[in-house]
Amino acid sequence: MKQLIERLGGVGGNSDGGVTRLLYCEAWVAAADLVQGLMGAAGLETRRDEVGNVFGRLPGTDPSAGVVLTGSHLDTVRSGGRFDGALGIVGGIAALAALRREGVRTRRSLEVVALCEEEGSRFKGSLFGSRAILGLVEEHEPDAMWDRQGTNLSEAMREVGLDPKLVSNARRNDVECFVELHIEQGPTLHEAGIDCGIVTDITGLSQRLFTVVGQADHAGAMPMDRRRDALAAAASMISRVATIASEAGHPVVGTVGELTVDPGSANTIPQMVRFTLDLRHPHDRVRADILSSIVQECQHIAISGGLSLEVSELWEQPGSPMDSALQDILADTASTGGLTRQAILSGAAHDSQLWARHVPTAMLFVPSVNGRSHCAPEYTSPEDCAQGATVLARALAEIA
Amino acid sequence: MKQLIERLGGVGGNSDGGVTRLLYCEAWVAAADLVQGLMGAAGLETRRDEVGNVFGRLPGTDPSAGVVLTGSHLDTVRSGGRFDGALGIVGGIAALAALRREGVRTRRSLEVVALCEEEGSRFKGSLFGSRAILGLVEEHEPDAMWDRQGTNLSEAMREVGLDPKLVSNARRNDVECFVELHIEQGPTLHEAGIDCGIVTDITGLSQRLFTVVGQADHAGAMPMDRRRDALAAAASMISRVATIASEAGHPVVGTVGELTVDPGSANTIPQMVRFTLDLRHPHDRVRADILSSIVQECQHIAISGGLSLEVSELWEQPGSPMDSALQDILADTASTGGLTRQAILSGAAHDSQLWARHVPTAMLFVPSVNGRSHCAPEYTSPEDCAQGATVLARALAEIA
Repeated sequence: MKQLIERLGGVGGNSDGGVTRLLYCEAWVAAADLVQGLMGAAGLETRRDEVGNVFGRLPGTDPSAGVVLTGSHLDTVRSGGRFDGALGIVGGIAALAALRREGVRTRRSLEVVALCEEEGSRFKGSLFGSRAILGLVEEHEPDAMWDRQGTNLSEAMREVGLDPKLVSNARRNDVECFVELHIEQGPTLHEAGIDCGIVTDITGLSQRLFTVVGQADHAGAMPMDRRRDALAAAASMISRVATIASEAGHPVVGTVGELTVDPGSANTIPQMVRFTLDLRHPHDRVRADILSSIVQECQHIAISGGLSLEVSELWEQPGSPMDSALQDILADTASTGGLTRQAILSGAAHDSQLWARHVPTAMLFVPSVNGRSHCAPEYTSPEDCAQGATVLARALAEIA
Repeated sequence: MKQLIERLGGVGGNSDGGVTRLLYCEAWVAAADLVQGLMGAAGLETRRDEVGNVFGRLPGTDPSAGVVLTGSHLDTVRSGGRFDGALGIVGGIAALAALRREGVRTRRSLEVVALCEEEGSRFKGSLFGSRAILGLVEEHEPDAMWDRQGTNLSEAMREVGLDPKLVSNARRNDVECFVELHIEQGPTLHEAGIDCGIVTDITGLSQRLFTVVGQADHAGAMPMDRRRDALAAAASMISRVATIASEAGHPVVGTVGELTVDPGSANTIPQMVRFTLDLRHPHDRVRADILSSIVQECQHIAISGGLSLEVSELWEQPGSPMDSALQDILADTASTGGLTRQAILSGAAHDSQLWARHVPTAMLFVPSVNGRSHCAPEYTSPEDCAQGATVLARALAEIA
């Protein structure tokens, strides 16, 4: 596991120790080649689909039975870590390789997939790999998304030899369930010293764009009591987001991660500020209520300062409960293997949240040291990686 | 005056109604040509110096006497207004043209100057035109400043036919005093219905860069009470800046105008935030005390959240009192002309703050409608512009 993580993490590595593998970029192409090579070396039947998802198959004894699918995403955020996504791919390959080596024969076929994209880091439409397999990519979508450099998704696909017109051919109807091994990306397991987490729910997510409009004036000549400073107002709003989310209590989290100031000059009072809100809770109703108090308080801040506030939807993702029978299998397998485990909520989004709406789905977490993720210090010990892959292998064998 | 403002404002006009004339850019070159043409048409002797300052001269009767200089800057901020700087140039030209037309002969020569640069919008070293005339440009400076596109100031000079090696030749020792006509850029005169302001002081300015460093984590997986969110901390700091500056009372102003978030992704907790503080008060001691409380409170916010804060100096400009004899001449001239006037503090920086340290200097303000400045809606009525130019003409005649 140590070797596999290191090899994949070396593809797209930055000077800061982070990893950047954006969909269809050079590092992504190299990583897909590497992963297909690893699958082949593990004795799996490999193939790629029309969006670049890479599959490795260990055939079952009943060719007419459905497929048990495991895997995770090959792409990363900009300067992300070496384990997010990567562990689910190399852990799945290792699990299937071990089952094959030990001569385990299952009725259903087992497949591991390196999903082409989950993060939405290059193009806005995330979960592209899973959506393609589930037949959820709209026909016009590849023509309607651009990266920061103005490259169209269709263009980007053609550059790596894929035909955007054939995306719908990636759809599969033979997947019977999906099991994803992943790092926790939070501190819970590591701090409690627990070996693995059995995910009960993937949190729901409301992302909004806040646009605060005030008035640009000269920073020296406009008295304090006459200003309509968009950044001063946004600062009050951001403080309220943190307070409201904290007071609502665990597992609510609210984050302002992006902010731009216009005109953005040291000696001009800001005219407009745009910032994102990322609010999470597994229960859609609870989340909606908290969002509504945040928006209401921010509107109050805007109005009382003579500014305007518009809030628009960027993303709305309902909470996804995991399949309880599969949770039981993962939990029992962990216990049988002598590992400690706990039920856990995923605060991060995953491919599994989409799969859960179509087939029985489960996720297994291993600890993230200090809960760090989406950054260079992201780390999970080789032992924890191997334990996760072992539980995965045994659970997959039982499921299949 | 209306026509002159419109002609100059048309050079570098943006689609949003603002004007962008950055030092040595195409629009700047066209504006310098236009201004030199206007000076010539007004019957003044014109010339340009080694940095591109444009002069128009109305010779006095005593060739051995010093020069009374008026004028302002030709450059603008990005998408600035049509009056900031421009009024002092066209008002100066109109004033000298009127004196010449009416056959007024003065002992000292009168000159109007279009200063090449004041705003620091393209290259960081502002007041470049005045500094060149006063011999305050360091020899290495043109090689050591770059614009956003990575163009060197020396390169930019050569592109418009100027030799950066000859900057020191722009120095003059014959200027005996400087009088600048300018828009107020704040709301005081317009709201009080006063015709003109006699500037007593130009405020002092402390600009600082605040760098707040926390920790990047996953926005979904890291609980609220475990975060070291650089933007949440910066938001608290910005709120304190506004409160401290407001509570300190007029004429203190404190502004955060620039802010960047790193990594700046909606689903990542901000690791680092950089923002500028622009703090102004005419008395250096008062300003230093307020700055010190702001820094202290921000350090407290950083420490209590487990973050670090560094504060570095961007700019330190002491307060500049104007010459009292020249203030009296401007005040008397305004009164004699039947205009209302008041003593006023300039919260904005001006070329005059630098001139004041070397020769007797004064500034005359005319009202800015609603105090708007550094933006497209910046406006001063043609009547107010003409009244300002009239007071300027009469005062210059008396001084010279």
